[in-house]
Amino acid sequence: MPEIHDDRRRRLSELLTRRGLDAALVTDLNNLRYLTGFSGSNGAVLVPAEGDPVFATDGRYIEQGRAETGLEPRLVKGALAPKLPALAVEAGCHTLAVETHDLTVDQHGALTGADDSGTLEFSSLDRAVELLRTVKDADEIAALREACDVSTRALERLIAGPVVERTELDLARELDNLMLDLGGEAVGFDTIMASGPNSSIPHHQPSARTVRRGDLLKIDFGARVRGYHADCTRTFVVGSEPTDWQLEIYAAVQEAQAVGVGEARPGAETKAVFDAVVATLEPTGHADKFVHGLGHGVGLEIHEDPFMGETTTGTLPDRTAITIEPGVYLPGLGGVRIEDTLIVHADAPEILTTASKELRVID
Amino acid sequence: MPEIHDDRRRRLSELLTRRGLDAALVTDLNNLRYLTGFSGSNGAVLVPAEGDPVFATDGRYIEQGRAETGLEPRLVKGALAPKLPALAVEAGCHTLAVETHDLTVDQHGALTGADDSGTLEFSSLDRAVELLRTVKDADEIAALREACDVSTRALERLIAGPVVERTELDLARELDNLMLDLGGEAVGFDTIMASGPNSSIPHHQPSARTVRRGDLLKIDFGARVRGYHADCTRTFVVGSEPTDWQLEIYAAVQEAQAVGVGEARPGAETKAVFDAVVATLEPTGHADKFVHGLGHGVGLEIHEDPFMGETTTGTLPDRTAITIEPGVYLPGLGGVRIEDTLIVHADAPEILTTASKELRVID
Repeated sequence: MPEIHDDRRRRLSELLTRRGLDAALVTDLNNLRYLTGFSGSNGAVLVPAEGDPVFATDGRYIEQGRAETGLEPRLVKGALAPKLPALAVEAGCHTLAVETHDLTVDQHGALTGADDSGTLEFSSLDRAVELLRTVKDADEIAALREACDVSTRALERLIAGPVVERTELDLARELDNLMLDLGGEAVGFDTIMASGPNSSIPHHQPSARTVRRGDLLKIDFGARVRGYHADCTRTFVVGSEPTDWQLEIYAAVQEAQAVGVGEARPGAETKAVFDAVVATLEPTGHADKFVHGLGHGVGLEIHEDPFMGETTTGTLPDRTAITIEPGVYLPGLGGVRIEDTLIVHADAPEILTTASKELRVID
Repeated sequence: MPEIHDDRRRRLSELLTRRGLDAALVTDLNNLRYLTGFSGSNGAVLVPAEGDPVFATDGRYIEQGRAETGLEPRLVKGALAPKLPALAVEAGCHTLAVETHDLTVDQHGALTGADDSGTLEFSSLDRAVELLRTVKDADEIAALREACDVSTRALERLIAGPVVERTELDLARELDNLMLDLGGEAVGFDTIMASGPNSSIPHHQPSARTVRRGDLLKIDFGARVRGYHADCTRTFVVGSEPTDWQLEIYAAVQEAQAVGVGEARPGAETKAVFDAVVATLEPTGHADKFVHGLGHGVGLEIHEDPFMGETTTGTLPDRTAITIEPGVYLPGLGGVRIEDTLIVHADAPEILTTASKELRVID
């Protein structure tokens, strides 16, 4: 889909023109994929303010690069960084912005030191491409929708059971395999399968613990489709009627999550969305048990801009993809988290993780 | 096993003393794990030439960090880099080596800019810890042995069949699950399952292609155990007697691989080992079809120092863990690669990937 990448690069070029820069040299692999479609593990693209892009990669990726980008790759042998200034000079550039949040000190030194012409003036592109990436286009939303659909269907199959008397590790393995069976190209991140007291650990790693009746079971998981990540959490009660404390914290998180989703509108301050969720938890007495951020952008990375938390700044753009994931954790007892991936829209958000958020008892 | 980490840090301290540096600030996560045992995703350790180490991490990892490192973690809130200079000043350091091959330009700027004391003199640690890591201790060799054992057993189960008429993707999935079933903590890298003409692509990604009788089937795979990676490649003929060209390139690679293993002795120049393998391939007429490096170190990373190829420098240390993996690839037809993970010893290497290297026909 080279037109899409043309369009994305055009937006970067416009930004370069506004900043008075001749070109950007994009080395971060997610940014590179966003701007060119290239999914390999080594490459860079020079995006000039005016003129044609130059895509460079090594011998392993020439064919793949040509097919994915629709550009004729420039072959680079050996380390990439020292070969890049020559491409910029050849393209007639003088002022060149590089990704100082991606290049290591050594790579940056090798790159700037390799400008034999002495005519290049280097600056930082900062997170300009990450900021472009916060607004999702139709293709990205389609991939996110598919990733979330695969994930949600895998979850429903898993919780059809049996669940009780199986280990967290075993259940996590099955969920991962279901995501692949249903069309995920990969499992997007390490699945969290946290039962009983383990559910009170926000980022518990699946263990050999056997899931028992009466447990809370918190599952945080997501498939990847065409590079895009789903991110979903649901919490269940296993094999018996929920107890009072389980009902209470579930209801608190469910309401807080709904408030967060409601506040996630274009132009909303990220901190204000977080604050609204905390304010909802305050009367329940559990606000201090919500110990992490409210959510994050999701796309080519599982965690990307915009982030929403106590200390974040900035607002939510229209058509950004984010998670809303409050949780309440009672150490040693159990915890509940409910998380959706959604697209922010002016009217109402599109929730991509469509699994029910009502408290369900599973066996 | 804090004693092991004490010992590793002691070797780094000795190196600092020789270089006249007060301390090293280690931020690369594999180096951090090597020096402390910490396996989380955010942390750093200050290793002084004399005195006690200081381990820092964020709130998520305090408990895990304490348990894994045997050190009392220093809690850091927010970005790590700007908090680190104060730890060095507090420890009485003036000259501080940082990992410029790991820190991004922005992280390095935040770190050096946060030295309020103005007394710190920063330099680069270069790849000092990576070099220490090339020599494996008994614990590392045990983990590598276990990872290779899991991998080899998984392979034998897979090739017991059925193999024919299944897709590459399906076979790769089964191999991955077998590695987990047999005790791998994770699949160490994306499994290569390359059949028929695909076997001529060195790093083919598993596809929907169905494996047919008469195919070569090249499998490059490995499990991870306690952070340590196995790396093994075997190539098979599927469902029929090998053809002449298959026998010919298999024999060429088999001999070349044996020569590489034989040359992998302590003190051997990495380039000389590569050259010996190429020289073995020359009379077969296939030397130009061996298009990649001969091998690489393997440990906490799947690819680490020492590397062995046409342009590498340096020698193999005693007790280093490396792969030897020549291949011959006939585009459009098929390819053979045979790869072992082994430990270099003065007498003879210990081959950890014990699967047979004779040409086998599988169904």
